[in-house]
Amino acid sequence: MTDERATLMIAASESDSNLYYATRFMAPDPFIFIEVKGERLLVMSDLEMDRAKSQATVDRVLSYSEVERRLRAEGVTEPGTADVVHAVLQERGLQRLLVPGNFPYIHAARLQELGYQLATKKEPFFEQRVVKTGEEVRHIEAAQRATEAAVAAAHDVLRAAIPRGGVLWSDGVPLTSERIKQLINVKLMERDCVAQHTIVAGGEQACDPHNEGSGPLPADRSIIFDVFPRSGQSRYFADMSRTVVRGTPSPELRRLYQTVKDSQEEAITKIRDGADGAKIHQGICARFEAAGYRTELVNGRMQGYFHGTGHGVGLDIHEPPRISRTGSPLQEGHVVTVEPGLYYPGLGAVRIEDMVLVTRNGCRNLTNYPKTFELEC
Amino acid sequence: MTDERATLMIAASESDSNLYYATRFMAPDPFIFIEVKGERLLVMSDLEMDRAKSQATVDRVLSYSEVERRLRAEGVTEPGTADVVHAVLQERGLQRLLVPGNFPYIHAARLQELGYQLATKKEPFFEQRVVKTGEEVRHIEAAQRATEAAVAAAHDVLRAAIPRGGVLWSDGVPLTSERIKQLINVKLMERDCVAQHTIVAGGEQACDPHNEGSGPLPADRSIIFDVFPRSGQSRYFADMSRTVVRGTPSPELRRLYQTVKDSQEEAITKIRDGADGAKIHQGICARFEAAGYRTELVNGRMQGYFHGTGHGVGLDIHEPPRISRTGSPLQEGHVVTVEPGLYYPGLGAVRIEDMVLVTRNGCRNLTNYPKTFELEC
Repeated sequence: MTDERATLMIAASESDSNLYYATRFMAPDPFIFIEVKGERLLVMSDLEMDRAKSQATVDRVLSYSEVERRLRAEGVTEPGTADVVHAVLQERGLQRLLVPGNFPYIHAARLQELGYQLATKKEPFFEQRVVKTGEEVRHIEAAQRATEAAVAAAHDVLRAAIPRGGVLWSDGVPLTSERIKQLINVKLMERDCVAQHTIVAGGEQACDPHNEGSGPLPADRSIIFDVFPRSGQSRYFADMSRTVVRGTPSPELRRLYQTVKDSQEEAITKIRDGADGAKIHQGICARFEAAGYRTELVNGRMQGYFHGTGHGVGLDIHEPPRISRTGSPLQEGHVVTVEPGLYYPGLGAVRIEDMVLVTRNGCRNLTNYPKTFELEC
Repeated sequence: MTDERATLMIAASESDSNLYYATRFMAPDPFIFIEVKGERLLVMSDLEMDRAKSQATVDRVLSYSEVERRLRAEGVTEPGTADVVHAVLQERGLQRLLVPGNFPYIHAARLQELGYQLATKKEPFFEQRVVKTGEEVRHIEAAQRATEAAVAAAHDVLRAAIPRGGVLWSDGVPLTSERIKQLINVKLMERDCVAQHTIVAGGEQACDPHNEGSGPLPADRSIIFDVFPRSGQSRYFADMSRTVVRGTPSPELRRLYQTVKDSQEEAITKIRDGADGAKIHQGICARFEAAGYRTELVNGRMQGYFHGTGHGVGLDIHEPPRISRTGSPLQEGHVVTVEPGLYYPGLGAVRIEDMVLVTRNGCRNLTNYPKTFELEC
């Protein structure tokens, strides 16, 4: 036995971005990744052997069914995934494993029975993953260009819509959130970007930040667009929010919009290598308070500013770092959103979100879309 | 302390179908679900409180930030998710927890430190989840109707394509896998179904069952379509595979197709409440062997029949039960695929897949799409 430690992941790379990051191999069902003594290896089902050998960025691909057969021959009646891991590790004489925080408990428990000591760490599991390479930034920007094209098409439809009786009309029928979301999602799919949970929420609905919106879109009230597709090709996400109104906003709503926009743009000026995410978030909170926008529970419902200012974007839509109450220092190469918002039932809601690349002396805004509040035809 | 056991999940319901099944609430970031003494409760971030209260099928929604504040007041400096769980459970006097197999190890380890005993079980975590209700079957069928419409549109394009020089031509350019996949995915998005990893793979590419296909589609050789979108609205999946040829297949390829088709249709006749999935799979293997189609490693590559015959379909694309070597008994209300395939580099590949609902005396085929091998214009 040695003091060395192996890194172990058991997951489906389709839904586990750390595993995809480590292997650049996409599979819908769980497989085994082990990094031991500088060698990176996979244990794959027969179904995935071929693809894994040709695509995965690892040193070796072992056959799960072969290891399983060997275990059966040795008398293990129903070898499970952890037993297969054990069989692979045994000959290498390791007992200490580093696993990601989301490592499945069922495998952890079995490995502990087999005598392994497991250690874990908080995200980022791979520290390098938060620092984007030039290629990763290009993938994110490509998804962002598609996002902008889709939102532009949607805004064109809103511009052409007619405000009447409190709602927007298009082609003789009320224009709905569902129709605009579908338009955005289809436009994105035409560019091989998969959008889910696209938000097009107006009026009262927008006051709940994760309400996706439904029914006729309101005239004269703010409508939040929040679009965050994933590229089917690169697997990287983009993320953008805009708030618009069609018709005539109240002076109070105009002021709400301007306050969010000013605070968002001020926050962006503070982003640079070494800046403290928590302080940037706190700055926005203070600015909102100073402008008279309080954050509090009213009739059992939160209003004001009750979400974080930003999050990392990459192979996950929400990944480290965070620009929030618990934010960490920003670092050159981070890609983060800056998305303050204010939500007041009765008045309405505004959220504005850009995605920026942190640089040594500032940041580069990866978003290239105007911040126009009042859409005119 | 009592002998009772609480059920605990910590996950994002966006990516964890057990949690979505239990709560019918969709959130992109992890939250806490606890079922204790007949009460089902959530602990949610401020951001999700409103939506959770109005949408989640639980008895109570607690505020994560409130529990966190209480812990800080009690002197816990950096309360983590497991500490919040502990705070909620403490007053209820429970020490035994049942968690799903994929429960994050990082939380399991902390809960064990806090004195909890964790037990887990294999999938299905919720046994009822494998038995579909009438409503669930309708959701699956709706996604399947969309799938059929999208594949039909793609097959129309293939029918109109011209075989020349070994590839298919359309509008004066070679017709590619990418173009057909995009067509299918866009058609599905128009019906609010999200398709990812759609397979349109011809010739040699199709011999790797999970190769999604790229480049010009071959004439005279088999092309596998495997389409498995998820409904954005209901979150249920559908799944269908068809194999077609445009041009003139070789007699050997025709025979390969017929063998797979016959075996698939025979397998469907065996499906009923109580049937053994492993036996159905074995029946197909035996039939292929008897027809001279061997399964073996040739030049380091698997050929023949080297995947399972079917899997459950529901909120996950692959869920219990399995119709495979390790298959379990089928039960009324299961929705399963039946998808044998044969893969021979040089000759080509065929996979045919329907989705069926297991009934007391047989099954109801949820797929309503012809099995036409040779597409003619």
